[in-house]
Amino acid sequence: MRLCTFEVESRFGAVERVGMQTPGGRILDLHVAYALSLAEGQQHPRAYELADLLVPPDMVEFLAGGQFTLDAVNDALAHLGSRVEDPDLTGRDGEQLAYAVDEIRLLAPLPRPNSIRDCLAFEEHLKSSLGDQGIPPAWYEFPVYYKGNPDTVAGPDDDVVWPSYTQLLDYELEFAAVIGREGLNIPKEEAWDYIAGYTIFNDVSARDIQMKEMSCMLGPAKGKDMDGGNILGPFLVTPEEFDPRKDNAMIARVNGEEWSRGVTSAMYHDFGAIVSYISQGETLRVGDVIGSGTVGTGCGLELKKFPKPDDVIELEIEGIGVLTNRFIKP
Amino acid sequence: MRLCTFEVESRFGAVERVGMQTPGGRILDLHVAYALSLAEGQQHPRAYELADLLVPPDMVEFLAGGQFTLDAVNDALAHLGSRVEDPDLTGRDGEQLAYAVDEIRLLAPLPRPNSIRDCLAFEEHLKSSLGDQGIPPAWYEFPVYYKGNPDTVAGPDDDVVWPSYTQLLDYELEFAAVIGREGLNIPKEEAWDYIAGYTIFNDVSARDIQMKEMSCMLGPAKGKDMDGGNILGPFLVTPEEFDPRKDNAMIARVNGEEWSRGVTSAMYHDFGAIVSYISQGETLRVGDVIGSGTVGTGCGLELKKFPKPDDVIELEIEGIGVLTNRFIKP
Repeated sequence: MRLCTFEVESRFGAVERVGMQTPGGRILDLHVAYALSLAEGQQHPRAYELADLLVPPDMVEFLAGGQFTLDAVNDALAHLGSRVEDPDLTGRDGEQLAYAVDEIRLLAPLPRPNSIRDCLAFEEHLKSSLGDQGIPPAWYEFPVYYKGNPDTVAGPDDDVVWPSYTQLLDYELEFAAVIGREGLNIPKEEAWDYIAGYTIFNDVSARDIQMKEMSCMLGPAKGKDMDGGNILGPFLVTPEEFDPRKDNAMIARVNGEEWSRGVTSAMYHDFGAIVSYISQGETLRVGDVIGSGTVGTGCGLELKKFPKPDDVIELEIEGIGVLTNRFIKP
Repeated sequence: MRLCTFEVESRFGAVERVGMQTPGGRILDLHVAYALSLAEGQQHPRAYELADLLVPPDMVEFLAGGQFTLDAVNDALAHLGSRVEDPDLTGRDGEQLAYAVDEIRLLAPLPRPNSIRDCLAFEEHLKSSLGDQGIPPAWYEFPVYYKGNPDTVAGPDDDVVWPSYTQLLDYELEFAAVIGREGLNIPKEEAWDYIAGYTIFNDVSARDIQMKEMSCMLGPAKGKDMDGGNILGPFLVTPEEFDPRKDNAMIARVNGEEWSRGVTSAMYHDFGAIVSYISQGETLRVGDVIGSGTVGTGCGLELKKFPKPDDVIELEIEGIGVLTNRFIKP
């Protein structure tokens, strides 16, 4: 399933909804789809109220429903069949069921995740970034990570406003796993079951301030935390359609020119190990986002060239899609 | 004002409320106080619904009301006068107005902050912790910080469960500022106005894993993020009663023996500078918690001795109170 959060205009302002990309490329409103199928099928008198609870239009709440919510969505899809592509089908109050892509605005799949952690799981990125220093032995022992600011998330096609305090703004080609079940002390072999899906992650970084911060040993902060600097999207692809252990291509292009290329399977610590490790003594929550870290060659820092204002950054991951954003100076 | 979040038993389970310590040492339920004063004074027919909005029983929502909420509380206090000490006064449905301390359980003032950042603002702590290495020049330029996990907050008298993955569990004697107003690019001279109050912060740390993590340059993660490892309390004291620029004593005791002593005013970067710095290009939100960092001598790491299982850690800050917790092995 290719899930998304989208925004659509209404008489009372913009409204956020949870959607799914249909085989025909439309964006299906899952709350309307479920309500409509209940109203038509069971003729349930409280179809819309049930849909509010079982297929809510907020992604973190949607994921919190777990398999119950996915089953409800699958029931609705089975009921609606090819009608999910029908541009004229509407719900009780005239809400559209399925939108053309240009009728809506895709947001980050989780516009406000419960948290963001970002790992450093690709060995090549670390080797290229460190220069002469060797990789610290601890890096091989366990997956290291820092925590990002979940209030700074942006989505597809959002412009990245260049912060006043940096001369060196960079992209990072990553992907992220999203936690779909609360868990504590999760064994490695069960850890994959806690992942609701995967999305592309551009971890925008201000390299000059980041390097200064990291000299003080607490890790990056302002170097990563500018408003709009944690970009997620365009889709949250569920695990039955996307397996990061396969060689899914990861590509970054700047103004159409390829700068970076790698594969998701090159992670030294995989997401099973990462989820299990983080959950030791620390409860993972629904809506926690965990970044892979930058793939080898996946940022300007490694390539010793950096994006400029007005450059367009496209991150593509095979099986997820393309996440496009422009750097702008205000 | 000495604010708190407390839990009280009801027929339908434990309920969280926002309280204030009265001059007589009772805990006043501010939502009930405001509703009662509206019902008695203006005889407002919707006193309780207004109280839900204007003096809500959740601390982050309470703080979001800003001066409007504080004005409402002050109106209620003026109306009730010495009756805030009355153990028998109740609201519409029999809810108690003011509790004896042993009738309730104090929680962290913010049981789930919007975020936790933790600085490293005391020079002596850094000097003592670094040993032979010098302080990095960047430390003097700007306040560095890492981000903690706001899902791991505990409160007064909660036991700290020793995580299985550490041999060296430590306390850290800190205090924290809580953001009460959203802001971006806040000038230094206005930054103090964004602080709703201050509380004591025990940043429990697993030193062995923390040091290994920090060798990988992303800062601490599992070394700080165990469930229950970010302890806040007992009160959130508003700025008119607590000024960190004064020499408020900070003391830590382990099993009653004094281990640590310092003053809040010794911060090299003060909270005005910190709030202004963090807000550059990054919006601060209501309910963001910002730790001072450990005061000099304020942890076992500096003293080269560490708490053991069953030790009781008391952190006292003059003008805020005492935060007491026990380390236990499960």
